[in-house]
Amino acid sequence: MAVKITGTGSFIPPRIIENTDFLNEEFLNEDGSKINSPNEVIIKKFQAITGIAQRRYVAKNTTTSDIASIAAKKAIEDAEINPETLDYIIVAHNFGDVKYRNTQSDAVPSLAARVKHQLQIENPNCVAYDLIFGCPGWLQGVIQAKAFIDANIAKRCLVIGAETLSRVVDKHDRDSMIFSDGAGATIIEKTTSEGDGIIFHKSATYAKNESHYLTFEASYNQDLKRETRYIKMSGRKIYSFALTHVPQAMKECIDNSGYNITDIKKIFIHQANEKMDFAICERLYKLYQLEMPKNIMPMSIAELGNSSVATLPTLIDLVKAKKIDNQEIHKGDVILFASVGAGMNINAMIYKI
Amino acid sequence: MAVKITGTGSFIPPRIIENTDFLNEEFLNEDGSKINSPNEVIIKKFQAITGIAQRRYVAKNTTTSDIASIAAKKAIEDAEINPETLDYIIVAHNFGDVKYRNTQSDAVPSLAARVKHQLQIENPNCVAYDLIFGCPGWLQGVIQAKAFIDANIAKRCLVIGAETLSRVVDKHDRDSMIFSDGAGATIIEKTTSEGDGIIFHKSATYAKNESHYLTFEASYNQDLKRETRYIKMSGRKIYSFALTHVPQAMKECIDNSGYNITDIKKIFIHQANEKMDFAICERLYKLYQLEMPKNIMPMSIAELGNSSVATLPTLIDLVKAKKIDNQEIHKGDVILFASVGAGMNINAMIYKI
Repeated sequence: MAVKITGTGSFIPPRIIENTDFLNEEFLNEDGSKINSPNEVIIKKFQAITGIAQRRYVAKNTTTSDIASIAAKKAIEDAEINPETLDYIIVAHNFGDVKYRNTQSDAVPSLAARVKHQLQIENPNCVAYDLIFGCPGWLQGVIQAKAFIDANIAKRCLVIGAETLSRVVDKHDRDSMIFSDGAGATIIEKTTSEGDGIIFHKSATYAKNESHYLTFEASYNQDLKRETRYIKMSGRKIYSFALTHVPQAMKECIDNSGYNITDIKKIFIHQANEKMDFAICERLYKLYQLEMPKNIMPMSIAELGNSSVATLPTLIDLVKAKKIDNQEIHKGDVILFASVGAGMNINAMIYKI
Repeated sequence: MAVKITGTGSFIPPRIIENTDFLNEEFLNEDGSKINSPNEVIIKKFQAITGIAQRRYVAKNTTTSDIASIAAKKAIEDAEINPETLDYIIVAHNFGDVKYRNTQSDAVPSLAARVKHQLQIENPNCVAYDLIFGCPGWLQGVIQAKAFIDANIAKRCLVIGAETLSRVVDKHDRDSMIFSDGAGATIIEKTTSEGDGIIFHKSATYAKNESHYLTFEASYNQDLKRETRYIKMSGRKIYSFALTHVPQAMKECIDNSGYNITDIKKIFIHQANEKMDFAICERLYKLYQLEMPKNIMPMSIAELGNSSVATLPTLIDLVKAKKIDNQEIHKGDVILFASVGAGMNINAMIYKI
């Protein structure tokens, strides 16, 4: 028995927001003072660090559960399954459905129930719930699906990561340029193959001192209502945290999987910051006294930005469809997943295709 | 091996809101028209149907994660465990942290991460996440904890249900009188005993036609901002839905547990509406051509209202502490849990003490 990803699907909103679209924003420091650089310089520096040139925003009449449903349909088609045979629908997100120009998050009913409704799945034994675990939510959903299969309460699960971060950004904060919208979906199921699929996984939550590295806070513009809050991150703290803990979690996964670091064909890492992603992986290889192989990390951040829980499932879907230059995966490849985000949460997984 | 509840704790906010406290509210129909009865009559009728005489509201400076942490501490003390030995913290809620006089839900970081932070738990292998599954969220968290234990990725989990519905009620809606605040917590763990603990469980999601029986909508007062939304329920549809599906789910649990209906010593049912709870249980017994035994359902709704995910764990905690008149549970008792809520979701569980 192996637990495998048997289908993938994604929804990349067609509306492209270029870095130049931010040229007229009024970027402020945390204390509300004006940043002492022209926007051209701020944006150039931003792109140099994060690698982000574009991001995607959903249409005005669209919410997270809508795009989650589109990605889900594609994954179901890709897996060639009857959706009525699903035992679970797990939707990872962090802000629920947020309507355009509205500040309220809405998860009643759960986004998973909304997806089930949009897919018009009738079977009541298909249990739909939402999972909140920061950006690592989709991978955590996969880990939960695996547990349900191992515990014999499920055979086939739909695991979705979907977010519309464009609805919760503070336009006076440079970090707003990081965030993007998107949805990725996967079918996780029990198969008869042996020795492949999910080999080992690891999850961790660091909350004693780190719980507030990613939060929901008032705008940097002190003239805006203080009670309206937006996604906020302590970038430097997150960078340092990720570099300390993510390579260790990846190593623990590899060392417990029965494979060697040299067996890893691809690393699918959460797309939060290009420089950070490379630094994490370089450090992982350094733990084995190795150089990071070229081309080991498929990257989507330049064109898609950080769409939180959606980035990893979207990235796999793109690589499977050969939509990322010089990036392919093949039957038998051992791959490593890793993500980090609000909580602070980390997870990693070794998977054999 | 058995998976058992080894500790319980709850936080019942000290502030009591009496039905008479609603005498000066302006109750409206869905279309905004004034209800054609004096408030005395509306409230009397409300109490006759729901059985609710009082509910609890948290203090102004308190949020859901605060009361979740208090209940968690009590459960940890009750189980006499070191919190650093927890493998999971699962917090079931539906609206996140909502500050007083604020309309935004906040779950970044997750409430589970906030609880872990408030408890100052250091162990990174204690994984903290939130679960959204409507009112049945706490019981679903217990089912997930059981799966993690069965799948060998956990031994000991903290499962919390916490909600502050006072922050999301529309005061122009009579249904606002139903909702309450509270938190209940349980330690779920692998034990060496045999044949007891969680015996069988069942979960279901009905979303094809039912997903919007419980939602987040604008106030009945058409003069209030239409974009600000509040918890809204289609009471009659929910009543009819619950009566059709909950007894069936309970029966499926009993019939698969190896026990007979006559073995059930107590039924712990989600406290949403007294009349509905009695109707559900009467129908369950009717499925076996039996009369419902007297005193089989411990009830807290008269004093505590409906605190969503918090009601079931609070109810067990109260009965364990003999704080509900003529209600006791003893070693060896077979008990039945059941809940129903937004999604629409249902779950049930047979448990031997």
